[in-house]
This record gives sequence, structure tokens and C-alpha cells, in this order.
Amino acid sequence: MDSKAYERGMEMLRKMVGPDVMEGTVERVAKFSPDMARLVVEFPFGSLYSRPGLDLKQRSLLTISSLVTQGAVDQMDFHIHAALNAGLTPNEIVEAVMHCLPYAGFPKSLGALGVVIRIFEERGVTVEV
Amino acid sequence: MDSKAYERGMEMLRKMVGPDVMEGTVERVAKFSPDMARLVVEFPFGSLYSRPGLDLKQRSLLTISSLVTQGAVDQMDFHIHAALNAGLTPNEIVEAVMHCLPYAGFPKSLGALGVVIRIFEERGVTVEV
Amino acid sequence: MDSKAYERGMEMLRKMVGPDVMEGTVERVAKFSPDMARLVVEFPFGSLYSRPGLDLKQRSLLTISSLVTQGAVDQMDFHIHAALNAGLTPNEIVEAVMHCLPYAGFPKSLGALGVVIRIFEERGVTVEV
Amino acid sequence: MDSKAYERGMEMLRKMVGPDVMEGTVERVAKFSPDMARLVVEFPFGSLYSRPGLDLKQRSLLTISSLVTQGAVDQMDFHIHAALNAGLTPNEIVEAVMHCLPYAGFPKSLGALGVVIRIFEERGVTVEV
Amino acid sequence: MDSKAYERGMEMLRKMVGPDVMEGTVERVAKFSPDMARLVVEFPFGSLYSRPGLDLKQRSLLTISSLVTQGAVDQMDFHIHAALNAGLTPNEIVEAVMHCLPYAGFPKSLGALGVVIRIFEERGVTVEV
Amino acid sequence: MDSKAYERGMEMLRKMVGPDVMEGTVERVAKFSPDMARLVVEFPFGSLYSRPGLDLKQRSLLTISSLVTQGAVDQMDFHIHAALNAGLTPNEIVEAVMHCLPYAGFPKSLGALGVVIRIFEERGVTVEV
Repeated sequence: MDSKAYERGMEMLRKMVGPDVMEGTVERVAKFSPDMARLVVEFPFGSLYSRPGLDLKQRSLLTISSLVTQGAVDQMDFHIHAALNAGLTPNEIVEAVMHCLPYAGFPKSLGALGVVIRIFEERGVTVEV
Repeated sequence: MDSKAYERGMEMLRKMVGPDVMEGTVERVAKFSPDMARLVVEFPFGSLYSRPGLDLKQRSLLTISSLVTQGAVDQMDFHIHAALNAGLTPNEIVEAVMHCLPYAGFPKSLGALGVVIRIFEERGVTVEV
Repeated sequence: MDSKAYERGMEMLRKMVGPDVMEGTVERVAKFSPDMARLVVEFPFGSLYSRPGLDLKQRSLLTISSLVTQGAVDQMDFHIHAALNAGLTPNEIVEAVMHCLPYAGFPKSLGALGVVIRIFEERGVTVEV
Repeated sequence: MDSKAYERGMEMLRKMVGPDVMEGTVERVAKFSPDMARLVVEFPFGSLYSRPGLDLKQRSLLTISSLVTQGAVDQMDFHIHAALNAGLTPNEIVEAVMHCLPYAGFPKSLGALGVVIRIFEERGVTVEV
Repeated sequence: MDSKAYERGMEMLRKMVGPDVMEGTVERVAKFSPDMARLVVEFPFGSLYSRPGLDLKQRSLLTISSLVTQGAVDQMDFHIHAALNAGLTPNEIVEAVMHCLPYAGFPKSLGALGVVIRIFEERGVTVEV
Repeated sequence: MDSKAYERGMEMLRKMVGPDVMEGTVERVAKFSPDMARLVVEFPFGSLYSRPGLDLKQRSLLTISSLVTQGAVDQMDFHIHAALNAGLTPNEIVEAVMHCLPYAGFPKSLGALGVVIRIFEERGVTVEV
């Protein structure tokens, strides 16, 4: 076991999202399968996000585009919160989903926009029109 | 027909890639089906890329991630060239593909890396190790 | 901005679905992001559906198959309503989903059938067995 | 019509899952479209699962991996029940989802784990940690 | 074994494509794995295509859209030939690929167009511009 | 860096495939981007494959099904070689691809079978008909 990657990963996760999002995602997995949680924390968050080549805002754009493209609406909550916390403006996040229209297709982009609308409402975030 | 969107799109395309890449992609489509070419030029490049909300480097990251995620290796050439021309460094492009590992999965990320390796070799681009 | 494509798109949309479906889809997007709504209306509905090469029934078949194949169950409501309004019979719609079994796979075809069952029940549509 | 394949398929299905799961899946389809139900029963369960080349536990692993990879969370209930009934241990099922992490990507594997957690809770199944 | 479904399937296949396409697809599979070939012939072509609910032109549209959407460029040859033989005009086939742009996304639609261009050239088929 | 996971991963890889396959895959990546190679070796092969919950034959079935389902034909070579080396019989591998027909869809299963045919020919492997 690589306890350093795990610790780095948990630190990164706490930097990315608040304790309530952590509880609904990482901690829920950890209670059921600590091994799965460990792998999920260690590899992306412990080994990848902490690399210097790209900053958190750039990584957020990459992640959002991948989630939109694979239609992973259930996993978007975490990463929309993380994108706002990383400093992407609400308008940049909407623009990112819009940019996916021709690449991921309209159905997946519209499905993703539904998640963005819901989270912005929950957090009281507004977009400038 | 929206001739302004088309003109804006062609201008954007010429800004994004060189004439040889244009010939192998847009012009090949235009020769076969001018209508398809028009739609492909107008919507993404005439209406979307020219929007102010995100710059070309950010749009390149979003596009690369979507292409990696859907395994669109045949359409990556254009966008790896465009990413380099937009000012993403070779290392940022490799890091972007690496970031897709947990999201798009390893098979699609490795497939995409194969395209990156080939194009970097063709253009004589080197990554700092 | 291409106001003609937008007007053509809105006209096409009103021809395809009733005001209640419009409200739950296009208008909900327009309230949140008028720009996203504009792109979604202009390109597919203003520039594509209105083209003469295929009629609305043929376009419905193409759309249903694409949605089934990408598992876009949340975006199917609109297009099942549109398919019925375009004149596809309930049996043709079920047969279309059935035809997707070997191409999209059984899980996605069965997921899509669930949407069809629900909408047919909501609209009081019956299939001849 | 191939009544033998249908009978073989129904027999296989009853061997794979209990009457309550059958009712929520196969019988619900059969009530709406007997033809669709017939095709769904005959081909996979009547012609494929009953073949001698792989046993039910091996077929469960293949099915779970395919469902995880295509994000077919709504169709996983049936096959998690079937996997338990075929004799895969709860830990093997969790390990199978974990094995999909690098192949299907983390978002789809985590989405699938959510289904596994729910079904294990419903059936009172526990994993050894 | 359901020899009638197999015979119906082989008859349907011979109606859909010429002997040279048959040799490169069905017969190549049959030589390697007769069981796989049997399943591939029986279910889609013996049990599904021969159903009365939709004609071959409608089924071609559904199939093309599914193949475009899943990026199955290697399996498109067979079905572009079948679409032409079923009576879809070259322009309808191109229009069908165009219709997929917003649904399947531009990369997959452009990838599919590449196959259409190649097959039309091979068969000397021209589109009216 | 977790040098133990890397060493475990390299050991696992050498157990799974011969030196020629290693050279065309892992070593080609390592030459271009040692960091990418490290992540690819450490996580799946160093942390996952070596876990006790499932044996290599079971992991091969899971991997093959995921690759078939996502149409990752270019990444199948490695894993078909690995499956044979793990002790899956040629017939079990073909049966596994066959089992994917209803789940991954026929186009992706047939695409995968093409890879299996080629590798079996290259290795002189025969299936019992």
C-alpha cells in the first residue's frame, strides 16, 4: 500500500470539495469498500491531480468534458463543485458545456447542462446573461 | 444560409491549423458534400469557437478530452495540430491525455497517446522528460 | 447572430412538439442560458431538420436510433413525442427500438423501451399486439 | 418462431433470478410488447447463456464488465442478482467492479458501485472488509 | 438450433448485399467460428430484418445512425452497401450522416462520412451537389 | 513515487505477456513519456491485477468484455495475448466475444472477433469447431 499517495489524495480532495460533498461520495464508498476507496483516492487524486503540468482549472475543464462526453451525469456533481472551488467562473463552466455540443453531441451536453442548472440553483450561483 | 457564420468559421479554421491540415479535412469534405462542410464550418468554428467565454487553449483542452473519451482517434490529428498552434506546450498536451486516464479509461487514453506520439514525431516536436 | 436560423428553428420545434414539451426542454434551457438555447435551436432545428433531403419521419428514426445507441434516456421524451407527432405509428416506434437490439445492444434498447412504455402510457397510446 | 429457444430462455431466466426480479423486467416488457420480450428471451437466454463454453459465473463477469463499461446502471439490478445466484461471492462482485476502474473509467465504475451497494443492502448481503 | 431462422437470415443477407461483401464479412466469420456466424445470421437477419413493421429503407436509416453513433466505422461498409441496395439514394445516405451531426457528435459523423466517401468512390456512386 | 507498485506492475506485465508484446506497448510509451508509463504500470498492473480477489483468468474475461464494449480494438492485442497466457482456451476467448453480442452489440463484437482471428492466426492458435 502506498500511504503517501493516499494522504496526498485525501488532501487534494479536501482542497477540491467541501466536507458535505466528501461525505456523499468518497466516504460513502469507503464505508462499503475501503479498498475501492483507497484506489479511487490514490490514483487520480494522489498521483494525478497533484502533478505540476496543469493547474486545477485546466484539469477541471478536462474532467468536465470527459464526463459530459460519456454521459456521466451522476458523477458530475462532485466535479461541478470542484470546478467552482478551483476558480472557474459560472459562465466558464456553462461555456465549457456549450463547447461540448459538437463533440459530445447535443443530447449529452443538454443532459450535463441539467446538472449544472441544478447545482447552480443549490449553491445560489448565477450566470451573467 | 448564414454566410457570416461560414466566413467566421473559415477564418477561425485558418487560424487553428495550416493549409495542409485544412486540405486533408475540411476541403476533402467540401469536395464531396458542400452542405456537410458548410454545417461543419458554420456551427463549431463560426458560432462556437469565436465566442469570448473561453480562449483557444481552454477550448483545446475541452476538445482533446472529448475526443480521447469517445475514442475518436481519427479526428485527433486536426485538434493536436490546433492545440500546438493555440499555444499549448507539448508537455501540456501529454499531461492532458494523462489526466484522461481515470476518466476516459486507460485503453482510450493509450490509443490517444499513440496519435500524439505520431504527430509529435511528424512535426519534430519533443517533450521534456 | 443568425436570427433567421433561430426563427426557422423555433417554428420547426413548435411543429415537432406541443407547448408543454417545449416548456420542459427549450424554455428551461433558455431561461438559464439564452446563448445555449440559441445554439441548440439554430443548428439542429433551424439548419438541419428543415433541409429537404429527408422527411420528418425518416429524421425521427435516425434520431431515435442515435439516442438509443448512446443511452440518452433523459433526452428521449422530446423525440418520442416528436416521432408520434411526425406520424410514425406507435408500432413503428416500438419496432425501431427493437431494431436497435443487435446494434445498440440489449441493455440500451431495453432502457429506451422503458421510456417508450412510460410516454405511451402518459399519452394513452396503445400498440397493437 | 423458435418456441424451443424461448422455452430454454425462460428456463434459464428462472434459474438466474427470482420471480420478483422476473416480474419487474421480463414480464413488464412482455405485457407491453410480446415480440420484444420474445427476442430478448430467445437470443441471449435461449441461445447464448445455455451454451457449454463458459459457465454462469464466467458469463456473469463478462456481463457485469460490459454493463459497467457502457454505464447501463438501470440494467444492472437484474445481473447483480443473477451474479449472486450464480455463486459469485459478494467480494468477487465488488472486485469485478474494481477491476473495471482502469478500463471503463472511474466515473462508470463508481456509478456501478452505487448499484451494487444498493442491491447488497436490499438483499442483506455483506462484504468482508 | 433454429435452422429456419438461419435460412431466413441467409436469404435476407443475400438480398441485402452482393456475394463479394458476403465473403468479406459473413463467410470470413463462418470459417473461423460457425457458431458465431450462426448467431449473427439468425438473430438480426433471420428474426429481426424480416419482420413486417418497418421496410428495409427504414431499417437502413436506423442501422446507419446506430453505427455512426457508436463510431463503428469498420462495420459500416456492409451497411452502406445494403442501404444503396435497399433503395436509399446516395443523397439520402449523406443526409442521414449529416442528420447525426448534433446527435452522435461531429467527430463520429465525420468519421462515418469518410467511409461513405470511400464506398461511393469504389462503387462509382455520385451525389448531386 | 511508489516504486514498489511499479516493480510489482512490471513483474505482473512480464507474467502476462512476452517481451515482444511488452516492447510494442509499455516500452513504446515509456520511451515517449516515462510518467505516463509509470502511471499505466503502477495502477492497473501494480495495484489491481495483483489483488487476491479474482484470478488472472477471471480478470482476463472482465478486461476482454470491457474492451469489446468500448470498441477498443487497438488495445485488444495485448489482452488477447494475456488471456491465452493466463490459461483461457482459444474456445473460451471466442465464447467470451460471442457472449458480448447482446451486451456490447453486434458491430463491436464483430470488430473484436476480427482482432481475435488475426492474433490466433499470428500465434498459430486454432479453435475447435
